[in-house]
Amino acid sequence: MYTLFFSPNSCSLASAIALAESGLPYELRRVKFAENEQQSPEYLKINPKGRVPALATEKGVLTENVAILAFIAQAAPEAKLAPLDDPFAFGRMQAFNVYISSTVHVAYAHRKRGYRWADRQESFDDMAAKMPKNLRDCFALIENEYLAGPWVMGENYTVADAYLFTMSDWLAGAGVDIAEFPRVADHYRRMKERPAVQRAFAEHQVA
Amino acid sequence: MYTLFFSPNSCSLASAIALAESGLPYELRRVKFAENEQQSPEYLKINPKGRVPALATEKGVLTENVAILAFIAQAAPEAKLAPLDDPFAFGRMQAFNVYISSTVHVAYAHRKRGYRWADRQESFDDMAAKMPKNLRDCFALIENEYLAGPWVMGENYTVADAYLFTMSDWLAGAGVDIAEFPRVADHYRRMKERPAVQRAFAEHQVA
Repeated sequence: MYTLFFSPNSCSLASAIALAESGLPYELRRVKFAENEQQSPEYLKINPKGRVPALATEKGVLTENVAILAFIAQAAPEAKLAPLDDPFAFGRMQAFNVYISSTVHVAYAHRKRGYRWADRQESFDDMAAKMPKNLRDCFALIENEYLAGPWVMGENYTVADAYLFTMSDWLAGAGVDIAEFPRVADHYRRMKERPAVQRAFAEHQVA
Repeated sequence: MYTLFFSPNSCSLASAIALAESGLPYELRRVKFAENEQQSPEYLKINPKGRVPALATEKGVLTENVAILAFIAQAAPEAKLAPLDDPFAFGRMQAFNVYISSTVHVAYAHRKRGYRWADRQESFDDMAAKMPKNLRDCFALIENEYLAGPWVMGENYTVADAYLFTMSDWLAGAGVDIAEFPRVADHYRRMKERPAVQRAFAEHQVA
Protein backbone atom coordinates (compact mmCIF):
# COMPACT_ATOMS: atom_id res chain seq x y z
CA MET A 1 0.00 0.00 0.00
CA TYR A 2 1.31 3.40 -1.03
CA THR A 3 0.25 6.64 0.63
CA LEU A 4 0.35 9.84 -1.38
CA PHE A 5 0.47 13.07 0.62
CA PHE A 6 -1.30 15.67 -1.46
CA SER A 7 -2.96 19.06 -1.47
CA PRO A 8 -5.93 20.04 -3.65
CA ASN A 9 -5.04 22.08 -6.74
CA SER A 10 -1.34 21.39 -6.27
CA CYS A 11 1.11 19.58 -8.52
CA SER A 12 0.58 16.40 -6.48
CA LEU A 13 -2.21 15.74 -8.98
CA ALA A 14 0.44 14.41 -11.37
CA SER A 15 1.52 11.67 -8.98
CA ALA A 16 -2.13 10.93 -8.13
CA ILE A 17 -2.94 10.37 -11.80
CA ALA A 18 0.05 8.07 -12.20
CA LEU A 19 -1.06 6.04 -9.19
CA ALA A 20 -4.59 5.80 -10.56
CA GLU A 21 -3.19 4.62 -13.91
CA SER A 22 -0.75 2.15 -12.34
CA GLY A 23 -3.10 -0.33 -10.71
CA LEU A 24 -0.99 -0.14 -7.55
CA PRO A 25 -2.88 -0.06 -4.23
CA TYR A 26 -2.79 3.42 -2.75
CA GLU A 27 -4.48 5.83 -0.42
CA LEU A 28 -4.46 9.60 -0.36
CA ARG A 29 -3.63 11.68 2.69
CA ARG A 30 -4.44 15.38 2.48
CA VAL A 31 -1.95 17.90 3.86
CA LYS A 32 -3.96 20.92 5.01
CA PHE A 33 -2.12 23.93 3.64
CA ALA A 34 -4.77 26.30 5.06
CA GLU A 35 -3.66 25.14 8.52
CA ASN A 36 0.03 25.20 7.51
CA GLU A 37 0.18 21.47 8.16
CA GLN A 38 3.00 21.15 5.62
CA GLN A 39 5.26 22.89 8.16
CA SER A 40 4.09 20.83 11.16
CA PRO A 41 6.74 18.73 12.96
CA GLU A 42 4.81 15.58 11.99
CA TYR A 43 4.80 16.38 8.29
CA LEU A 44 8.39 17.61 8.23
CA LYS A 45 9.38 14.13 9.42
CA ILE A 46 7.75 12.80 6.25
CA ASN A 47 9.05 15.52 3.94
CA PRO A 48 11.59 17.93 5.43
CA LYS A 49 10.98 20.26 2.47
CA GLY A 50 7.43 20.94 3.67
CA ARG A 51 5.95 20.37 0.22
CA VAL A 52 3.73 17.95 -1.61
CA PRO A 53 3.73 15.43 -3.15
CA ALA A 54 5.37 12.85 -0.92
CA LEU A 55 4.88 9.13 -1.48
CA ALA A 56 5.22 6.81 1.50
CA THR A 57 6.34 3.32 0.47
CA GLU A 58 7.28 0.29 2.53
CA LYS A 59 10.94 1.28 2.07
CA GLY A 60 10.53 4.95 3.00
CA VAL A 61 9.35 8.23 1.55
CA LEU A 62 9.97 9.60 -1.93
CA THR A 63 9.53 13.26 -2.84
CA GLU A 64 9.48 15.31 -6.06
CA ASN A 65 7.03 14.50 -8.84
CA VAL A 66 9.79 13.65 -11.31
CA ALA A 67 11.16 10.95 -9.00
CA ILE A 68 7.76 9.69 -7.83
CA LEU A 69 6.41 9.42 -11.38
CA ALA A 70 9.38 7.35 -12.53
CA PHE A 71 9.16 5.19 -9.41
CA ILE A 72 5.47 4.46 -9.98
CA ALA A 73 6.22 3.45 -13.57
CA GLN A 74 8.98 1.13 -12.35
CA ALA A 75 6.86 -0.30 -9.54
CA ALA A 76 4.07 -1.21 -11.98
CA PRO A 77 5.87 -2.26 -15.16
CA GLU A 78 2.77 -4.03 -16.49
CA ALA A 79 1.01 -0.66 -16.68
CA LYS A 80 3.63 0.49 -19.21
CA LEU A 81 3.78 4.07 -17.95
CA ALA A 82 7.37 4.69 -19.08
CA PRO A 83 9.90 3.30 -21.60
CA LEU A 84 11.69 1.33 -18.89
CA ASP A 85 13.81 -0.81 -21.22
CA ASP A 86 15.25 2.06 -23.28
CA PRO A 87 17.59 4.37 -21.33
CA PHE A 88 17.55 7.02 -24.06
CA ALA A 89 13.74 7.11 -24.31
CA PHE A 90 13.53 7.07 -20.52
CA GLY A 91 15.97 9.99 -20.45
CA ARG A 92 13.82 11.93 -22.91
CA MET A 93 10.81 11.38 -20.69
CA GLN A 94 12.75 12.42 -17.62
CA ALA A 95 14.03 15.52 -19.42
CA PHE A 96 10.45 16.52 -20.20
CA ASN A 97 9.39 16.00 -16.61
CA VAL A 98 12.38 17.93 -15.28
CA TYR A 99 11.51 20.81 -17.60
CA ILE A 100 8.02 20.85 -16.08
CA SER A 101 9.46 20.77 -12.57
CA SER A 102 12.33 23.23 -12.85
CA THR A 103 11.02 25.64 -15.48
CA VAL A 104 7.24 25.45 -16.05
CA HIS A 105 6.19 24.96 -12.44
CA VAL A 106 8.80 27.49 -11.30
CA ALA A 107 7.47 30.03 -13.81
CA TYR A 108 3.94 29.50 -12.48
CA ALA A 109 5.08 29.75 -8.86
CA HIS A 110 6.12 33.36 -9.44
CA ARG A 111 2.43 34.19 -9.70
CA LYS A 112 1.60 33.90 -6.00
CA ARG A 113 4.78 32.67 -4.34
CA GLY A 114 7.17 35.48 -5.15
CA TYR A 115 7.95 35.69 -1.42
CA ARG A 116 10.10 32.61 -1.91
CA TRP A 117 12.63 34.63 -3.91
CA ALA A 118 12.11 38.28 -2.89
CA ASP A 119 10.83 40.34 0.02
CA ARG A 120 9.02 43.40 -1.37
CA GLN A 121 5.42 43.62 -2.54
CA GLU A 122 6.52 45.56 -5.62
CA SER A 123 8.73 42.63 -6.61
CA PHE A 124 5.86 40.19 -6.15
CA ASP A 125 3.68 42.35 -8.39
CA ASP A 126 6.44 42.55 -10.99
CA MET A 127 6.84 38.75 -10.98
CA ALA A 128 3.10 38.14 -11.17
CA ALA A 129 2.82 40.48 -14.13
CA LYS A 130 5.53 38.64 -16.06
CA MET A 131 4.27 35.15 -15.24
CA PRO A 132 1.74 34.78 -18.10
CA LYS A 133 4.43 35.58 -20.69
CA ASN A 134 6.78 33.01 -19.18
CA LEU A 135 4.05 30.39 -19.06
CA ARG A 136 3.19 31.13 -22.70
CA ASP A 137 6.84 30.71 -23.68
CA CYS A 138 6.96 27.35 -21.89
CA PHE A 139 3.77 26.10 -23.51
CA ALA A 140 4.85 27.30 -26.95
CA LEU A 141 7.97 25.17 -26.55
CA ILE A 142 5.90 22.19 -25.42
CA GLU A 143 3.43 22.71 -28.29
CA ASN A 144 6.12 23.03 -30.95
CA GLU A 145 8.96 20.84 -29.71
CA TYR A 146 8.09 18.41 -26.96
CA LEU A 147 4.53 17.15 -27.36
CA ALA A 148 5.23 14.42 -29.93
CA GLY A 149 1.57 13.46 -30.16
CA PRO A 150 -0.81 12.01 -29.51
CA TRP A 151 0.95 11.67 -26.14
CA VAL A 152 3.98 13.56 -24.89
CA MET A 153 6.36 10.76 -25.84
CA GLY A 154 4.50 9.76 -29.01
CA GLU A 155 2.30 6.70 -29.43
CA ASN A 156 2.77 5.52 -25.87
CA TYR A 157 1.02 7.12 -22.90
CA THR A 158 3.46 7.75 -20.03
CA VAL A 159 3.63 9.50 -16.68
CA ALA A 160 4.81 12.60 -18.58
CA ASP A 161 1.22 12.99 -19.77
CA ALA A 162 0.01 13.16 -16.19
CA TYR A 163 2.54 15.90 -15.44
CA LEU A 164 1.72 17.94 -18.55
CA PHE A 165 -2.00 17.66 -17.81
CA THR A 166 -1.41 19.02 -14.31
CA MET A 167 0.30 22.12 -15.70
CA SER A 168 -2.26 22.55 -18.49
CA ASP A 169 -4.97 22.56 -15.84
CA TRP A 170 -3.38 25.65 -14.26
CA LEU A 171 -3.38 27.75 -17.43
CA ALA A 172 -6.89 29.18 -17.05
CA GLY A 173 -6.19 30.31 -13.49
CA ALA A 174 -3.00 31.97 -14.74
CA GLY A 175 -4.96 33.94 -17.31
CA VAL A 176 -3.63 31.98 -20.28
CA ASP A 177 -6.11 30.52 -22.77
CA ILE A 178 -5.19 26.92 -23.51
CA ALA A 179 -6.68 27.42 -27.00
CA GLU A 180 -3.49 29.35 -27.85
CA PHE A 181 -1.85 25.92 -27.91
CA PRO A 182 -4.12 23.66 -29.98
CA ARG A 183 -2.11 20.46 -29.57
CA VAL A 184 -1.82 20.98 -25.81
CA ALA A 185 -5.55 21.72 -25.68
CA ASP A 186 -6.30 18.51 -27.55
CA HIS A 187 -4.03 16.59 -25.19
CA TYR A 188 -5.81 18.11 -22.18
CA ARG A 189 -9.21 17.16 -23.57
CA ARG A 190 -8.16 13.58 -24.25
CA MET A 191 -6.62 13.29 -20.79
CA LYS A 192 -9.93 14.30 -19.24
CA GLU A 193 -11.59 11.36 -20.99
CA ARG A 194 -9.37 8.82 -19.22
CA PRO A 195 -11.05 7.14 -16.24
CA ALA A 196 -7.87 7.25 -14.16
CA VAL A 197 -7.54 10.99 -14.73
CA GLN A 198 -11.18 11.50 -13.81
CA ARG A 199 -10.71 9.48 -10.64
CA ALA A 200 -7.52 11.29 -9.60
CA PHE A 201 -8.98 14.67 -10.49
CA ALA A 202 -12.12 14.04 -8.42
CA GLU A 203 -10.14 12.72 -5.45
CA HIS A 204 -7.84 15.73 -5.63
CA GLN A 205 -10.62 18.34 -5.42
CA VAL A 206 -11.88 17.54 -1.93
CA ALA A 207 -13.41 20.51 -0.14
CA MET B 1 30.96 8.85 -28.80
CA TYR B 2 28.96 11.29 -26.71
CA THR B 3 29.19 15.07 -27.12
CA LEU B 4 28.45 17.28 -24.14
CA PHE B 5 27.52 20.87 -24.93
CA PHE B 6 28.72 22.94 -21.99
CA SER B 7 29.56 26.40 -20.76
CA PRO B 8 32.32 27.21 -18.26
CA ASN B 9 31.11 27.83 -14.70
CA SER B 10 27.65 26.52 -15.54
CA CYS B 11 25.77 23.53 -14.15
CA SER B 12 26.93 21.45 -17.12
CA LEU B 13 29.90 20.63 -14.88
CA ALA B 14 27.72 18.00 -13.20
CA SER B 15 27.20 16.08 -16.43
CA ALA B 16 30.88 16.52 -17.34
CA ILE B 17 31.96 14.94 -14.05
CA ALA B 18 29.57 12.03 -14.59
CA LEU B 19 31.00 11.46 -18.05
CA ALA B 20 34.55 11.57 -16.71
CA GLU B 21 33.61 9.02 -14.02
CA SER B 22 31.73 6.77 -16.44
CA GLY B 23 34.50 5.61 -18.71
CA LEU B 24 32.29 6.36 -21.71
CA PRO B 25 33.96 8.00 -24.73
CA TYR B 26 33.02 11.67 -24.92
CA GLU B 27 34.02 15.04 -26.22
CA LEU B 28 33.15 18.51 -25.00
CA ARG B 29 31.72 21.25 -27.18
CA ARG B 30 31.68 24.73 -25.68
CA VAL B 31 28.63 26.93 -26.21
CA LYS B 32 29.85 30.53 -26.15
CA PHE B 33 27.42 32.38 -23.91
CA ALA B 34 29.38 35.64 -24.34
CA GLU B 35 28.43 35.50 -28.02
CA ASN B 36 24.88 34.37 -27.20
CA GLU B 37 25.56 31.17 -29.09
CA GLN B 38 22.98 29.35 -26.94
CA GLN B 39 20.30 31.31 -28.83
CA SER B 40 21.77 30.73 -32.28
CA PRO B 41 19.61 28.82 -34.80
CA GLU B 42 22.25 26.08 -34.90
CA TYR B 43 22.24 25.53 -31.16
CA LEU B 44 18.45 25.82 -30.83
CA LYS B 45 18.24 22.82 -33.17
CA ILE B 46 20.26 20.89 -30.60
CA ASN B 47 18.47 22.27 -27.54
CA PRO B 48 15.37 24.41 -28.21
CA LYS B 49 15.56 25.64 -24.62
CA GLY B 50 18.82 27.48 -25.37
CA ARG B 51 20.51 26.13 -22.28
CA VAL B 52 23.31 23.80 -21.28
CA PRO B 53 23.94 20.98 -20.70
CA ALA B 54 22.86 19.03 -23.73
CA LEU B 55 24.20 15.56 -24.47
CA ALA B 56 24.29 14.37 -28.08
CA THR B 57 24.03 10.59 -28.35
CA GLU B 58 23.72 8.32 -31.35
CA LYS B 59 19.95 8.23 -30.73
CA GLY B 60 19.47 11.97 -30.33
CA VAL B 61 19.93 14.75 -27.80
CA LEU B 62 19.17 14.66 -24.10
CA THR B 63 18.78 17.79 -21.98
CA GLU B 64 18.49 18.56 -18.25
CA ASN B 65 21.19 17.44 -15.83
CA VAL B 66 18.79 15.20 -13.91
CA ALA B 67 17.99 13.21 -17.05
CA ILE B 68 21.53 13.23 -18.44
CA LEU B 69 23.05 12.09 -15.14
CA ALA B 70 20.68 9.13 -14.89
CA PHE B 71 21.26 8.28 -18.54
CA ILE B 72 25.04 8.26 -18.11
CA ALA B 73 24.68 5.95 -15.11
CA GLN B 74 22.48 3.61 -17.16
CA ALA B 75 24.76 3.75 -20.22
CA ALA B 76 27.79 2.73 -18.12
CA PRO B 77 26.40 0.27 -15.56
CA GLU B 78 29.86 -1.08 -14.79
CA ALA B 79 30.84 2.33 -13.38
CA LYS B 80 28.12 1.90 -10.72
CA LEU B 81 27.11 5.56 -10.69
CA ALA B 82 23.52 4.92 -9.57
CA PRO B 83 21.48 2.22 -7.78
CA LEU B 84 20.07 0.94 -11.07
CA ASP B 85 18.62 -2.30 -9.69
CA ASP B 86 16.63 -0.74 -6.85
CA PRO B 87 13.76 1.51 -7.98
CA PHE B 88 13.30 3.00 -4.51
CA ALA B 89 16.98 3.87 -4.09
CA PHE B 90 17.04 5.19 -7.66
CA GLY B 91 14.00 7.30 -6.81
CA ARG B 92 15.75 8.72 -3.76
CA MET B 93 18.72 9.68 -5.90
CA GLN B 94 16.46 11.24 -8.52
CA ALA B 95 14.57 13.16 -5.82
CA PHE B 96 17.87 14.60 -4.60
CA ASN B 97 18.87 15.60 -8.11
CA VAL B 98 15.46 17.14 -8.81
CA TYR B 99 15.75 19.17 -5.60
CA ILE B 100 19.08 20.52 -6.88
CA SER B 101 17.54 21.33 -10.27
CA SER B 102 14.20 22.82 -9.28
CA THR B 103 15.03 24.42 -5.93
CA VAL B 104 18.78 24.90 -5.31
CA HIS B 105 19.77 25.95 -8.83
CA VAL B 106 16.60 28.05 -9.13
CA ALA B 107 17.42 29.81 -5.84
CA TYR B 108 20.90 30.58 -7.14
CA ALA B 109 19.59 31.78 -10.50
CA HIS B 110 17.79 34.64 -8.75
CA ARG B 111 21.20 36.15 -8.07
CA LYS B 112 21.91 37.34 -11.61
CA ARG B 113 19.03 36.05 -13.71
CA GLY B 114 16.10 37.80 -12.09
CA TYR B 115 15.14 39.07 -15.55
CA ARG B 116 13.78 35.61 -16.23
CA TRP B 117 10.94 36.21 -13.79
CA ALA B 118 10.57 39.98 -13.48
CA ASP B 119 11.23 43.17 -15.43
CA ARG B 120 12.33 45.88 -13.00
CA GLN B 121 15.83 46.51 -11.69
CA GLU B 122 14.45 46.97 -8.18
CA SER B 123 13.01 43.46 -8.35
CA PHE B 124 16.33 42.05 -9.51
CA ASP B 125 18.06 43.75 -6.57
CA ASP B 126 15.44 42.41 -4.17
CA MET B 127 15.91 38.87 -5.50
CA ALA B 128 19.70 39.10 -5.38
CA ALA B 129 19.55 40.29 -1.77
CA LYS B 130 17.43 37.33 -0.69
CA MET B 131 19.40 34.72 -2.63
CA PRO B 132 22.07 33.98 0.03
CA LYS B 133 19.39 33.21 2.64
CA ASN B 134 17.62 30.84 0.25
CA LEU B 135 20.87 29.11 -0.65
CA ARG B 136 21.69 28.72 3.06
CA ASP B 137 18.27 27.19 3.68
CA CYS B 138 18.85 24.72 0.84
CA PHE B 139 22.31 23.74 2.05
CA ALA B 140 21.11 23.41 5.66
CA LEU B 141 18.54 20.90 4.43
CA ILE B 142 21.20 19.05 2.44
CA GLU B 143 23.61 19.10 5.41
CA ASN B 144 21.03 17.86 7.91
CA GLU B 145 18.71 15.64 5.88
CA TYR B 146 20.00 14.57 2.50
CA LEU B 147 23.77 14.09 2.57
CA ALA B 148 23.82 10.57 4.04
CA GLY B 149 27.61 10.47 4.08
CA PRO B 150 30.24 9.90 3.06
CA TRP B 151 28.46 10.34 -0.28
CA VAL B 152 25.03 11.79 -0.94
CA MET B 153 23.39 8.37 -1.11
CA GLY B 154 25.56 6.81 1.61
CA GLU B 155 28.41 4.37 1.06
CA ASN B 156 28.07 4.40 -2.73
CA TYR B 157 29.30 7.27 -4.88
CA THR B 158 26.66 8.28 -7.46
CA VAL B 159 25.96 10.97 -10.03
CA ALA B 160 24.19 12.89 -7.23
CA ASP B 161 27.64 13.66 -5.83
CA ALA B 162 28.62 15.32 -9.09
CA TYR B 163 25.52 17.51 -8.95
CA LEU B 164 25.96 18.48 -5.30
CA PHE B 165 29.62 19.33 -5.95
CA THR B 166 28.59 21.63 -8.79
CA MET B 167 26.28 23.59 -6.49
CA SER B 168 28.79 23.62 -3.62
CA ASP B 169 31.31 25.14 -5.99
CA TRP B 170 29.00 28.14 -6.49
CA LEU B 171 28.64 28.97 -2.79
CA ALA B 172 31.71 31.20 -2.51
CA GLY B 173 30.62 33.30 -5.49
CA ALA B 174 27.21 33.66 -3.89
CA GLY B 175 28.76 35.02 -0.71
CA VAL B 176 28.03 31.91 1.35
CA ASP B 177 30.88 30.28 3.30
CA ILE B 178 30.84 26.54 2.72
CA ALA B 179 32.31 26.14 6.22
CA GLU B 180 28.81 26.89 7.54
CA PHE B 181 27.99 23.36 6.36
CA PRO B 182 30.81 21.12 7.64
CA ARG B 183 29.56 17.88 6.08
CA VAL B 184 29.01 19.56 2.70
CA ALA B 185 32.47 21.15 2.99
CA ASP B 186 34.01 17.74 3.68
CA HIS B 187 32.14 16.28 0.69
CA TYR B 188 33.41 19.10 -1.51
CA ARG B 189 36.99 18.53 -0.38
CA ARG B 190 36.81 14.79 -1.03
CA MET B 191 35.24 15.37 -4.45
CA LYS B 192 38.17 17.58 -5.41
CA GLU B 193 40.52 14.67 -4.71
CA ARG B 194 38.85 12.45 -7.33
CA PRO B 195 40.77 12.32 -10.63
CA ALA B 196 37.55 12.41 -12.70
CA VAL B 197 36.41 15.55 -10.89
CA GLN B 198 39.80 17.17 -11.42
CA ARG B 199 39.66 16.30 -15.13
CA ALA B 200 36.11 17.57 -15.61
CA PHE B 201 36.79 20.68 -13.54
CA ALA B 202 39.89 21.53 -15.56
CA GLU B 203 38.17 20.91 -18.89
CA HIS B 204 35.24 23.07 -17.79
CA GLN B 205 37.31 26.14 -16.96
CA VAL B 206 38.58 26.95 -20.44
CA ALA B 207 39.28 30.62 -21.00
